[in-house]
Amino acid sequence: MDKDITIYDIAKGVGFSPTTVSRALNNHPAVNQKTKQRIYEIATQMGYRSNMFASNLRRQRTHTIGVIVPILNSSFQSSVMAGMEKVATEAGYNLIISQSMGTAEKEVANAKTMFNSRVDGLLVSLAHDTENIDHFEPFFKKGIPVLFYDRVAEHKQSTSIVIDNVQAAYKATTHLIEQGCRNIVHISGNLKINVYANRLKGYKYALIDHNLPFRESLVITNNLTEEDGIKAAEQILKMKPRPDGVFVSNDFCAVNCMKALKQAGISIPHDIAVVGFNNDPITRVVEPSLTTIDYPGYEMGEVAVRSLINYLDALSDISITNTITLRSELIVRESSLRKLQK
Amino acid sequence: MDKDITIYDIAKGVGFSPTTVSRALNNHPAVNQKTKQRIYEIATQMGYRSNMFASNLRRQRTHTIGVIVPILNSSFQSSVMAGMEKVATEAGYNLIISQSMGTAEKEVANAKTMFNSRVDGLLVSLAHDTENIDHFEPFFKKGIPVLFYDRVAEHKQSTSIVIDNVQAAYKATTHLIEQGCRNIVHISGNLKINVYANRLKGYKYALIDHNLPFRESLVITNNLTEEDGIKAAEQILKMKPRPDGVFVSNDFCAVNCMKALKQAGISIPHDIAVVGFNNDPITRVVEPSLTTIDYPGYEMGEVAVRSLINYLDALSDISITNTITLRSELIVRESSLRKLQK
Repeated sequence: MDKDITIYDIAKGVGFSPTTVSRALNNHPAVNQKTKQRIYEIATQMGYRSNMFASNLRRQRTHTIGVIVPILNSSFQSSVMAGMEKVATEAGYNLIISQSMGTAEKEVANAKTMFNSRVDGLLVSLAHDTENIDHFEPFFKKGIPVLFYDRVAEHKQSTSIVIDNVQAAYKATTHLIEQGCRNIVHISGNLKINVYANRLKGYKYALIDHNLPFRESLVITNNLTEEDGIKAAEQILKMKPRPDGVFVSNDFCAVNCMKALKQAGISIPHDIAVVGFNNDPITRVVEPSLTTIDYPGYEMGEVAVRSLINYLDALSDISITNTITLRSELIVRESSLRKLQK
Repeated sequence: MDKDITIYDIAKGVGFSPTTVSRALNNHPAVNQKTKQRIYEIATQMGYRSNMFASNLRRQRTHTIGVIVPILNSSFQSSVMAGMEKVATEAGYNLIISQSMGTAEKEVANAKTMFNSRVDGLLVSLAHDTENIDHFEPFFKKGIPVLFYDRVAEHKQSTSIVIDNVQAAYKATTHLIEQGCRNIVHISGNLKINVYANRLKGYKYALIDHNLPFRESLVITNNLTEEDGIKAAEQILKMKPRPDGVFVSNDFCAVNCMKALKQAGISIPHDIAVVGFNNDPITRVVEPSLTTIDYPGYEMGEVAVRSLINYLDALSDISITNTITLRSELIVRESSLRKLQK
């Protein structure tokens, strides 16, 4: 038997292009099942062997999808998980989730665990200090699809699912300007995280487009926690002239900042108008209710799993889709509505 | 050959402490490989046998711990996960988490996935309609430890980690009574879930001990969602005489109920005093701030993983520990404090 049978030999034998043969032998979803079957048979008859070919024939689906998230401590992440579960359950898949706790080191360990758990595919929202995505190479090499969502990375074999954070922040800031704010503070998370960096950009662009100066001194960067919200309020109260608007990069920090401002005697929205980000349930409970950006977490989870399963089922080709952008929208509530209250 | 060779005999034989021998035989990472090898050899020469020793020798650790939760949509569950991650990371373990979405059917699928992922141990908070725990039998049979937390089941080979829900609810209700409330509503979750059934008991016992009648008509059972809180407020407003206290089995429902009551013109706590459960961050943001039970989720997560790892490292014996009960405490805030405000 010829040990050196190549893909080109098989291509001649079956009358398909070498690309198609290669894809079929690697179980590429772009090749339909019937063609694959025919190519497998002929390849086997001709005595073709390769580890990859063998492993794909051998590999059974586990019907398990791995998810790596920074940390499960927000309504946003809960909503994403709920959307993922819905689609996964309907399609007969189970999710296993791991938290990177926001560190690249743990993300690397998580990737290994997921690989060893033989997941059929992986959904990842990156840690803020992840500087490269080499730890996902074993997946790419094995043809196991990896999709990024929310906190994303570029990779030619991967698709990213995002919202347009620049545009959303632009809308939020423009709304504050339209409500008469001229001196707007932005409270941001770690700027190494793409979503926060992009929201800062949107804030900046909105100011520039409305002929307002962008001042570094009005940008407060922290970790957007409860305490950070309270501290930010103290910083705002010390600023001269006193700011008249605050755009915060998450709701939880925003409501805590707002409460601290109120306790210091500031009237919201009359003295200072506040806008958050995410549309967490808390925004509807606080008083005044919080204007925010509706970040469609549930839909993001649905789209992420749907895309992954479509790829696994060969209904779509991951290598041609770079980015899927979901709609986000501004929800105006009492915390910023000054025009009607005056 | 003496069949009753013990760890103490081996310790004498090798000149190490019994702890080191125990750890070595259970493949504990704190014992170096060389020492382990020596202890293994001597233990084998001496004819030491134990299922645990054998199975640990056979089984390779994956250093992965599986977690099955009903749903990751609360601050409580996030805190539990954070506590688990902390201890797991420190001990060199990774967590993989799956959601049962509150159904026994999905919990069965999750258990299979976890088993196939070859987790070293499993931590479970049960779905409300889980009627038996046969789906964990494969773990028990293989000697893979299963611990239950929060929503627990009895099993002779398992430990449960809980708070005393009866006592916590008793404290919450007693506090309302001490604040002058005589007509106290209880808003509960699904009573098939042990934690809610126990909180109802605590509410009932507190009434009885204070010579107040227990009335079924004052117990509202729902799913403790945002909408349920608003609906419950409508029900309360229709009750005659109007209730003067509400004890709600979770904070999120409580704050939504409180807001709806306020919008209907009710003064909190003067007309109606409100107490929640969990001590979610939201309780500190709402106005008035919410009196609640501090449920130590973070500590529960820590204890659960610590117990599991101690068992894996043979530092503790799961079959002798039935239940670990953590302390919970009442945190009095503005929503119930009538005595000082009058």
